[in-house]
Amino acid sequence: MSKFASRMKSMEKSAAVIRNLFGAMNDPEVISFGGGAIAKECLPVETIREITQDILQRDTRGVEALSYGPVMGVRDLREVVISDLIEPKGVMTTVENTMILAGGLEAMNLMCQVFIDPGDVILVESPTFVHSVEIFDMFQAKCIAVETDENGMNMDDLEEKIKKYNPKMIYLIPTFQNPTGITLSLERRKRAALLASQYDVVVLEDDPYRDIRYNGVELPPVKAFDATGHVVMANSFSKIFSPGSRLGYLVADETIMEKLADAKSATNSHTAILPQIICAEFFKRGHYPEHHRKLCSVHKVRRDAMLESIDRYFPMGTKRTSPDGGLFTWAELPQGLNTTKMLTEASTNPEVKVAYVAGEGFFTQGNGKGNNCMRLSFGAVPPEKIREGIEKLGNLLRQYEGKYSMKVGS
Amino acid sequence: MSKFASRMKSMEKSAAVIRNLFGAMNDPEVISFGGGAIAKECLPVETIREITQDILQRDTRGVEALSYGPVMGVRDLREVVISDLIEPKGVMTTVENTMILAGGLEAMNLMCQVFIDPGDVILVESPTFVHSVEIFDMFQAKCIAVETDENGMNMDDLEEKIKKYNPKMIYLIPTFQNPTGITLSLERRKRAALLASQYDVVVLEDDPYRDIRYNGVELPPVKAFDATGHVVMANSFSKIFSPGSRLGYLVADETIMEKLADAKSATNSHTAILPQIICAEFFKRGHYPEHHRKLCSVHKVRRDAMLESIDRYFPMGTKRTSPDGGLFTWAELPQGLNTTKMLTEASTNPEVKVAYVAGEGFFTQGNGKGNNCMRLSFGAVPPEKIREGIEKLGNLLRQYEGKYSMKVGS
Repeated sequence: MSKFASRMKSMEKSAAVIRNLFGAMNDPEVISFGGGAIAKECLPVETIREITQDILQRDTRGVEALSYGPVMGVRDLREVVISDLIEPKGVMTTVENTMILAGGLEAMNLMCQVFIDPGDVILVESPTFVHSVEIFDMFQAKCIAVETDENGMNMDDLEEKIKKYNPKMIYLIPTFQNPTGITLSLERRKRAALLASQYDVVVLEDDPYRDIRYNGVELPPVKAFDATGHVVMANSFSKIFSPGSRLGYLVADETIMEKLADAKSATNSHTAILPQIICAEFFKRGHYPEHHRKLCSVHKVRRDAMLESIDRYFPMGTKRTSPDGGLFTWAELPQGLNTTKMLTEASTNPEVKVAYVAGEGFFTQGNGKGNNCMRLSFGAVPPEKIREGIEKLGNLLRQYEGKYSMKVGS
Repeated sequence: MSKFASRMKSMEKSAAVIRNLFGAMNDPEVISFGGGAIAKECLPVETIREITQDILQRDTRGVEALSYGPVMGVRDLREVVISDLIEPKGVMTTVENTMILAGGLEAMNLMCQVFIDPGDVILVESPTFVHSVEIFDMFQAKCIAVETDENGMNMDDLEEKIKKYNPKMIYLIPTFQNPTGITLSLERRKRAALLASQYDVVVLEDDPYRDIRYNGVELPPVKAFDATGHVVMANSFSKIFSPGSRLGYLVADETIMEKLADAKSATNSHTAILPQIICAEFFKRGHYPEHHRKLCSVHKVRRDAMLESIDRYFPMGTKRTSPDGGLFTWAELPQGLNTTKMLTEASTNPEVKVAYVAGEGFFTQGNGKGNNCMRLSFGAVPPEKIREGIEKLGNLLRQYEGKYSMKVGS
């Protein structure tokens, strides 16, 4: 058989992590804190049905919805993105600089097509989003982790590493980060944009959770501080509209957008038209504000249930993040508890049947870092199930802890 | 600014061809024989609206349609593809070996991710589909043209070139080829599969037009003769369902499909769910047979109008293909008529205002081959407009011919 391309080997490890991530979620009896889905009750099924009834007429947008479309995306969706989602954040852009993608993840793929040659360095947070790392690996980039704390990526360490590694790209998930829920501070956002300009490095700002805020003050995107066109802003409609629509968007200055459009054309021509029109109409008809309120209030309750339950049921000495929004919290267990090793039992033991994502997979260092951590998603699970699941998981963790203590003592 | 990846340079030329291909189609007064669209009246707007009304209910498929889905695609769409579109052609496969893509073009992108390292050789038809070449260029493959005649790719020359160039992949568009409308003979299909096995080279069989047949006998896909898993079959729902849905599929044996699934996951997670469910239901509810009949009868009339008009209005000595199906015919003009140079005038001169695709862009040889050829798409233009457009274009060509003769004589 023809030999596979060398990138298939480079991505083998992270591809296995991704496959297992989603593989574990198939048993309906398992309470899964695994995937990144939102509450089913927030999926706007009825509204989308109404909209579809209207637009799928020959004298409205029916023919448009089923025909080939522009590579940049349907124009009124791009206009809506600008007026409703980007300008309110303090970022000025135009339709020419805004492209609609087949989901937020496609942004990472296209940015790699445009910028990454094998061996190029991408500076990432520690931990970072494993699915993006799978893409970076497919493009044979070298991912280097930058020190990260409760305010996000450390900018002094970023500057050090820019000088040391001469990276092609810096990858940030600055708000309610996947997997930690942490938010990059205002100071650091400004500094990230300055460093990018100063050292002439592209920043890929991946911000799909930013609009799901429960408390605290909204922060401008890094892009808002970008004076020289070094920041490319990527976002998704998966959380704020629906994951199944596979819609996202990219904002980039002209020189970069030209190349991104060519890469998009050579990936899948353009994004599906019907979902784009539905989404544009959803916003144009004024459905978003109420939908957004509901989204935030439903998930706030789930976040609260998650944090309270962790505090109540997890072993003493557990540290966890306090996300002001988004869908994830990150728990760091006492030393000795290995979340990678415990996962199979957690999801299959009839007394437990709870899934989480083991933390180790989110670190690019590859030295076992994070093997006492776990990402817990609260978006897709009702509050009472969150409590039940965390209690059962907590019991399991305490049993393991007991075993560990016994080994140490004997 | 961070340097662009080297693949951006490799794809520059074909990216420009693609941009111009679609750029020229914006003037509504131009009769465009450019793009590859189908007749608007064949877009099943009403049926899709009905289906969408049904499925977008919470107690039917509404939640599924808006949620994350499987990387391989919605299961019942894969089942429908197998039962309605693949098995009737003599190809046996399973859902595990069938993946739903975001459009047929994505197949070329994913196959390159899996197989192509920079410098790897892909053997292609001469001419071949320029949009696929853009993808091959983005992956920095070296495209080598194989001799092609009225029965498709020449298998003796294919074998010679396999031995000479040690290719990674052979790319075929075997039925009603884009751009020529030519069909690979039965003999050559069998031989292609044998050569692939014998020399251990993967064949990518791209067959989106095969079901739009007006006359003649249907031929089994190359995949039907594949005994060793070397043939990967790609197809699209763009012509037989709707282009705007961005749906396609790939059939590959297990070892290859594993890698394709990882590449898909690292491209955009999975294909949009709503279009997949609509398409599955379209077939399951029995709409396809009548839709298919209408598709063939409407486009047959257009094909006939195109061929008759070319014969009537184009310069003497013009050769053209006689496609038994599909959406394209290919005209080779008398020497001295340069279709690349004439295109601007053809599409902007008020007496003409007709667009076609200049033939040169479809050849990978890069030596001006095909500069007296043009691809003419008849799918999206009503018959009377086809006649009008070809007459006007024919007049222009004859004027150029006159000019040419005068230059030669003086």
